[in-house]
Amino acid sequence: MQNNLRINGDRLCRWLQELAQVGRIAGDGVCRLALTDEDRQGRDLVVSWMRELGMTVKIDAIGNVVAVRAGRVDGPPVMTGSHIDTVRTGGRYDGALGVLAGLEVIATLNDAEITTKRPLAVAFFTNEEGARLPPDMFGSLVYTGALPLAEALATKGIDGATAGDELARIGYAGPEPIGQPRAHAYVELHVEQGPVLEAEGFRIGAVEGVQGISWSEFTLTGQSNHAGTTPMRMRKDAGYVAAEIAVCARKVAQALGGYQVATVGALTLAPNLVNVVPNHVVMTVDLRNTDEDRLREAESRLFSFAEQTAATEGVGLTRRTLARFAPVSFAPQLVTRVEAIAKDFGLPVKRLPSGAGHDAQIMAAVCPACMIFVPSVGGISHNVEEYTGPADLTAGADVLLRLILELAK
Amino acid sequence: MQNNLRINGDRLCRWLQELAQVGRIAGDGVCRLALTDEDRQGRDLVVSWMRELGMTVKIDAIGNVVAVRAGRVDGPPVMTGSHIDTVRTGGRYDGALGVLAGLEVIATLNDAEITTKRPLAVAFFTNEEGARLPPDMFGSLVYTGALPLAEALATKGIDGATAGDELARIGYAGPEPIGQPRAHAYVELHVEQGPVLEAEGFRIGAVEGVQGISWSEFTLTGQSNHAGTTPMRMRKDAGYVAAEIAVCARKVAQALGGYQVATVGALTLAPNLVNVVPNHVVMTVDLRNTDEDRLREAESRLFSFAEQTAATEGVGLTRRTLARFAPVSFAPQLVTRVEAIAKDFGLPVKRLPSGAGHDAQIMAAVCPACMIFVPSVGGISHNVEEYTGPADLTAGADVLLRLILELAK
Repeated sequence: MQNNLRINGDRLCRWLQELAQVGRIAGDGVCRLALTDEDRQGRDLVVSWMRELGMTVKIDAIGNVVAVRAGRVDGPPVMTGSHIDTVRTGGRYDGALGVLAGLEVIATLNDAEITTKRPLAVAFFTNEEGARLPPDMFGSLVYTGALPLAEALATKGIDGATAGDELARIGYAGPEPIGQPRAHAYVELHVEQGPVLEAEGFRIGAVEGVQGISWSEFTLTGQSNHAGTTPMRMRKDAGYVAAEIAVCARKVAQALGGYQVATVGALTLAPNLVNVVPNHVVMTVDLRNTDEDRLREAESRLFSFAEQTAATEGVGLTRRTLARFAPVSFAPQLVTRVEAIAKDFGLPVKRLPSGAGHDAQIMAAVCPACMIFVPSVGGISHNVEEYTGPADLTAGADVLLRLILELAK
Repeated sequence: MQNNLRINGDRLCRWLQELAQVGRIAGDGVCRLALTDEDRQGRDLVVSWMRELGMTVKIDAIGNVVAVRAGRVDGPPVMTGSHIDTVRTGGRYDGALGVLAGLEVIATLNDAEITTKRPLAVAFFTNEEGARLPPDMFGSLVYTGALPLAEALATKGIDGATAGDELARIGYAGPEPIGQPRAHAYVELHVEQGPVLEAEGFRIGAVEGVQGISWSEFTLTGQSNHAGTTPMRMRKDAGYVAAEIAVCARKVAQALGGYQVATVGALTLAPNLVNVVPNHVVMTVDLRNTDEDRLREAESRLFSFAEQTAATEGVGLTRRTLARFAPVSFAPQLVTRVEAIAKDFGLPVKRLPSGAGHDAQIMAAVCPACMIFVPSVGGISHNVEEYTGPADLTAGADVLLRLILELAK
């Protein structure tokens, strides 16, 4: 019987539409930076919906909000959710979809008068974006104990505000103990924020994990020389070494294959004149993989190539790590269920990794966790033009409903 | 007898020292931008020395100054010289050496009471550097007819001044017909402005010609995408194509060998963020060779590689030519004589091309021409730290003296 249950796509879209009015900006985008007045307004609205659905709202000391619906037995709830803060020029789906689809699951069960065995919970974590207060996934890091509460509260924002002060100011420093309620499992529905599903004709992504990230900055120091009078063999060309490193990054990604990606996004040359050999380059390399061993292999190949090439060219090289996170694998049995449920619904489904960070990867440290992706049109995200159509939003929420029912029965 | 004649190195160094006081700047450098008050002061000083040496000073309508010493017969003089204008932060040898070594040759012949068969001339051409009024080699271009006088006089400087007005203001718009006096041959002594002679232990460079120059600007247009969520196969990475072009430039220089050089001096990436695939690059490629066919081959290889790589990557590419000059070959019989004379003096000599532009390459269009190089310490030029020691200055001027005597006998 429950296998015929479907969410109400119109209601989900209305909620998304209504929440998107809070902090709305030009181009139909949203600016709800964490712990601002707009964030408070958004929180108040979502909490009011949670209460209307009969849920018990719990708020912890870092402002994470977890609404619980009782089950037939006590115990850790099956949890879903995401975040409602946005980047400065954000879209209306990133984060909000996961939270409101969770509420839509609850509303659907209320309508059908179904009580699950285990309790259910819908959470929104504080400051997932980190756009105002670094780091990102701030609230879930505190929830799981990876970021100490005191440190989180003392965090200074890019506007000089302090997290603890702002939390108190907007009235979201709550009494719930950190890490409570514990979750039996955590499932998060999110827009892909990349182009793969749409480009390949898939409607559901069964997210296998989140890529590990390795960000390096290379500083290359050569010698500026006259481009006409300096023979090739006498050059210490920092720009040439930079170009070789950029080409190597691509080759490493190709050689490792799979989910390995490599990007040279930033590169600045000095003195940057047509007829002078460059003597100074600062460049970044962004390496990501779902597999830690392969990510280390990519780093090792790139770093040793860079060192050898710089040495051969007589160019000085220093490297510093700007960011380094290990990959996270989601619970294989949950990924398998997402895939199976989508197939059961007749929805083309693809296993893929997440290229962006999400609260689910933090929650994976404390309970079985997984994610469901729906397509992002053109792969556009963190942008007012972010868009996912109603049919895909509804399909994703239906998969979420079915998985929650399976986990909570 | 004349083979035992040597110039007076002390006198040459005193003249260099004295001229360097005009427009002297911090760090023992010189700023005598063309047609400024400092240029006038420098001109007045050099013209006064020319007259003290008994020479007839002729000034044409673009301010080129040619001082003539009569020979035993009339006819076109054997000419030497260079320029006395400098870049904004120039050294004391670039240009000045060629002019003052020419005067030192005259002084030496005066001291020895030698009259050559042909007349001799020492010239300084207006605005060789082009640092205030483009293009460079301005005066010699007018002298040889390559730049029309009216166009040259109308040239606007970077400070808004007009060449014709400035020339009149400093009193150097002369009556001598353009292109007069014609030269029997032109020989120019100059500092190398590159590192080769010093690094390889040579004291004299027998300059075979001046490299041809090809400057291109590439604009690459890709697509900016998330560095985490965009698979390698879905990217249109303008930065990667730029890196491949830069590496190709090096490979082309290596493959062609000889005097081929290739430099990517300027490269700007957008949006230039660590986690965004670059969608826009503007970069320059500077190719030079002494051989026009090989320079064309270098262009052809680089341009076709760039087009193919951009097409393969789905990146748009446009190219525009920023500058293009064909190589100039100096008169082979003169280059051979420079080499032979240096060997006769026991001076280690190397045949090499000039990587920078000089008045001699312009004069080569109207008479047999050649250049003699002396080492630049560290290859440094267009810089207050430009330096060539007295022994090398003297050696270069001795070779100049001998060659002038051979040509004028």
